[in-house]
Amino acid sequence: MLKLFYAPGSCALAPHIALEEAGAQYETVRVDLRAKDQRKPDYLAINPKGRVPALVTDKGVLTENPAILVFVAQNFPEARLAPLDDAFAFAQVQAFNSYLCSTVHVAHAHLTRGYRWADGSAAIAAMREKAPQSIGECFELIEREMLARPWVMGERYTICDPYLFTLARWLEDDGVDPAPFPKVRDHLQRMSERPAVKVALALHLG
Amino acid sequence: MLKLFYAPGSCALAPHIALEEAGAQYETVRVDLRAKDQRKPDYLAINPKGRVPALVTDKGVLTENPAILVFVAQNFPEARLAPLDDAFAFAQVQAFNSYLCSTVHVAHAHLTRGYRWADGSAAIAAMREKAPQSIGECFELIEREMLARPWVMGERYTICDPYLFTLARWLEDDGVDPAPFPKVRDHLQRMSERPAVKVALALHLG
Repeated sequence: MLKLFYAPGSCALAPHIALEEAGAQYETVRVDLRAKDQRKPDYLAINPKGRVPALVTDKGVLTENPAILVFVAQNFPEARLAPLDDAFAFAQVQAFNSYLCSTVHVAHAHLTRGYRWADGSAAIAAMREKAPQSIGECFELIEREMLARPWVMGERYTICDPYLFTLARWLEDDGVDPAPFPKVRDHLQRMSERPAVKVALALHLG
Repeated sequence: MLKLFYAPGSCALAPHIALEEAGAQYETVRVDLRAKDQRKPDYLAINPKGRVPALVTDKGVLTENPAILVFVAQNFPEARLAPLDDAFAFAQVQAFNSYLCSTVHVAHAHLTRGYRWADGSAAIAAMREKAPQSIGECFELIEREMLARPWVMGERYTICDPYLFTLARWLEDDGVDPAPFPKVRDHLQRMSERPAVKVALALHLG
């Protein structure tokens, strides 16, 4: 059975929602980031990167949200979570999710994980201070250029939607005013009404 | 015809190599980053992110290396640049390329583009100072856990190879000693002998 290693409040919420949407059979295993479980040998044997999420499959372990999300879409084609038969549309899905992981999530990480990129409390404080601005700029671009309605890719719900929802949920805690992003706010609301999202959130918030 | 917007020395080398490997018909358009061409209205109309690469197709514009590389692989299946019929192997390819874009390239960007994440010369200098260490840690993980031989995914050359080559080429200029990474160095050497790589590099170095 598929097994998702997650941490509450982390970006593992995205593949968790996707697994629910797909109707997959899966287990979840909680990783306690405050106890640094992700750096302990048991977990590093599963994911040497020491991060969540990780999805254990019968063929091996997968990491990185854009990859796990595509894997879920491909393994549960009846859930229609990605345009698997249209190379351009599929690449657009991958481009959106790549932007989330390489730019949006990275901007967010500078709030609390600046130690990855600089030593010294002053530099880390400077990163924390700028993060709301850089996160806000990402969401301005998403709002203006990248977000169709009702879902990210338009009429069809895809693996872009749970990933955007996961990062957009962080906006207010990150000190970014969501008021200028009405499409993003509508998307958050629309997502929060989906049964699969409620199931996944219950675990993450519980 | 496909049109690749690139800047010499940028990560656009990766899709350029992939287009060559695929035997694609394409044009290249040089974007002068020093003249800030990427921030001018003409280019922002193509790619509102103001970054390279961008691939103009007959269906629209694609950005983000993991997406462009998959698009090339899917459009030129006879070149066998990705395991398109094996969902797990395909997700492994995507996971590798996601790691390159979200972690390795981001670590590199802190050398010269720290202004994205903090204001002030001291914080930017602190990021520049730590970058060789964080880049080195990425390549330690790649060397130890992620790199098969002769190619990233083993016997089969894939879209992971041009992307790894592109980032690994930066190591010495980034102040990272490649000596501890013999598999990465072998990969660099093996890649540099491929005709497609020579064609793409000639444009990037010329």
